[in-house]
Amino acid sequence: MGEVSIRLDDLPLRDHLRGMTPYGAPQAALPVALNVNENTHPVPQDVADDILDAVALALRDVNRYPDREFTALREGFAEYLGYGVTREQIWAANGSNEVLQHVLQAFGGPGRTAFGFAPTYSMYPLLTRATGAEWIAGTRGPDFSVEVDDATRQVEEAAPDVVFLCSPNNPTGTPMSLEAIAAIYDATDGIVVVDEAYQEFAPHDAGSALALLPGRERMVVSRTMSKAFAFAGARVGYLAADPALIDALRLVRLPYHLSALTQAAASAALRHSHTMLAMVDEIVAQRDRMSATLDAIGYDPYESWTNFVLFGGVDDPAATWQGLYDHGVLIRDVGIPHHLRVTAGTEQETTAFLDALASLDSSS
Amino acid sequence: MGEVSIRLDDLPLRDHLRGMTPYGAPQAALPVALNVNENTHPVPQDVADDILDAVALALRDVNRYPDREFTALREGFAEYLGYGVTREQIWAANGSNEVLQHVLQAFGGPGRTAFGFAPTYSMYPLLTRATGAEWIAGTRGPDFSVEVDDATRQVEEAAPDVVFLCSPNNPTGTPMSLEAIAAIYDATDGIVVVDEAYQEFAPHDAGSALALLPGRERMVVSRTMSKAFAFAGARVGYLAADPALIDALRLVRLPYHLSALTQAAASAALRHSHTMLAMVDEIVAQRDRMSATLDAIGYDPYESWTNFVLFGGVDDPAATWQGLYDHGVLIRDVGIPHHLRVTAGTEQETTAFLDALASLDSSS
Repeated sequence: MGEVSIRLDDLPLRDHLRGMTPYGAPQAALPVALNVNENTHPVPQDVADDILDAVALALRDVNRYPDREFTALREGFAEYLGYGVTREQIWAANGSNEVLQHVLQAFGGPGRTAFGFAPTYSMYPLLTRATGAEWIAGTRGPDFSVEVDDATRQVEEAAPDVVFLCSPNNPTGTPMSLEAIAAIYDATDGIVVVDEAYQEFAPHDAGSALALLPGRERMVVSRTMSKAFAFAGARVGYLAADPALIDALRLVRLPYHLSALTQAAASAALRHSHTMLAMVDEIVAQRDRMSATLDAIGYDPYESWTNFVLFGGVDDPAATWQGLYDHGVLIRDVGIPHHLRVTAGTEQETTAFLDALASLDSSS
Repeated sequence: MGEVSIRLDDLPLRDHLRGMTPYGAPQAALPVALNVNENTHPVPQDVADDILDAVALALRDVNRYPDREFTALREGFAEYLGYGVTREQIWAANGSNEVLQHVLQAFGGPGRTAFGFAPTYSMYPLLTRATGAEWIAGTRGPDFSVEVDDATRQVEEAAPDVVFLCSPNNPTGTPMSLEAIAAIYDATDGIVVVDEAYQEFAPHDAGSALALLPGRERMVVSRTMSKAFAFAGARVGYLAADPALIDALRLVRLPYHLSALTQAAASAALRHSHTMLAMVDEIVAQRDRMSATLDAIGYDPYESWTNFVLFGGVDDPAATWQGLYDHGVLIRDVGIPHHLRVTAGTEQETTAFLDALASLDSSS
């Protein structure tokens, strides 16, 4: 039937989609893939075995629609998060992108705006525009930090309906203080989403914005199982907020959006949070080794509270990216001039990256 | 933290969501649940074992993002569908609702309209309005059939951007001829979605709209694994269309929307299509027994090409629904006066429904 195919532009596509190309980090199969901030450690076998047992149980009545309220999973997330969060405050979906989409479907949309301090997670503007809202890009300081007075001034001026605070920030790794988050909350009447996708990689004594939730009914703290739980393939994002805000998300989610297999697998993985967080500590150690070595060989790594490092001082990012690629190492050019971003891998992967980078430098 | 909770209306919710309540068929745990057109047969153990093996394999690199293009699964669907459909013509998502949402995100939206012949699948208007488009309800004949001349006239008058043809139709079970579908396609410049969620329950010699795809680049044929494949809990919907139309859906889907576990489980289940379709034949036999008995005891069942039966002649649907509920049998009041809808279950479940209904009649 190939001969009947027409071009995309011949179809009655919505105007704002014309000329667009789909989101896409390259799906290249390289030996060392450190480009999309995955957890490069596989799920340990005993955890995988428990997940499989849970999936086997779920398959017994997979002919029935799943629990639309994913009650057991919400209980698991509440217990994992702590901070007195209850299951009535939990929401989840197929990846944190869908969680954020639900927030925008409820509180964004035509005639509304969403705001974030750029550079930040590249999906925020895409998700915002997909619901018909307008994206407003704020600015950061020279080291990509967000300074309280400047931040509140920007938010007051923009008066957005939704504010995205990526904390710690992707793609820069930058921490954001709870004081800044609280001040920004006070500077807006909109929904404030604190995206803590990488929170587990922050110092153990760093507080979570979950501590700020009581009394702040417009605040949302989102998380993902993709990073700390090495679960990117399972697509599980979640958030905590006031129960009334959770009710708003029930209005926009598709019925039965979370499969019985996803619910079972995620609940089982959560029961092994101690094992998974021990893996996080290993990754943090590799991240710090990466930063120290990058600094030692003349690059400018930024402070990172995440599982990746952004580093400056790259004369020709495209050439360095290609050189690493040719050595079998895939990292990410996030579009910041003279910068590249690399995910902290296993000890071997991190060494492979650092060795390849050093060999490029010595050959140039 | 319960004491800080506020009311939904206190949040800056989008205007069109105010006063709405979430979609919800009751999630009641009754012994005989025939209310949401599930396949009441569990997945056979040998099929479940194969699915579990596939999930175990997928868990080995669940720390990595899934194949964004779900290539193997698309190949599986193309092979299952036949009619010369290739993998470039396949799309899938978390349930057919998400598949239809993708279509509306690409071709619906503010200032656009979607059309269907009411009564039809209750999610069409909800999905349409959620993208900002307007829903236009057409009409059916007295027996819920769609007559060609009347249908094309209605579509020409409405001039919608998207037409939904539920074939066979939910909640009425009504077949729609390929001639009618082709004529409606010619009567519009919009996208025509033929929703074949229940196609596997149609007579074996009934043609699929897949036969109409060549040369009709605005046509979409959607399916689901929820019904024939007893996979409602796994959330897998899919569609076939021109490759250019598939490209349009890539613009609106969230990256990595289909988890690695979902891809693995669905691919494994598809390899057992012969086993699953044998189960469909059993359900069809129960459906026909149900219709014959309903007719014999004085109700008016409609012709059904699905896994459920709509029947009229119910004096007081709420009372009959409650009477069956009190007998442990859950069916569905779909809001059509003097009608109720019941899913064909196993032989035992079907008997339980018919016996309960007969006992209500004899006691009234």
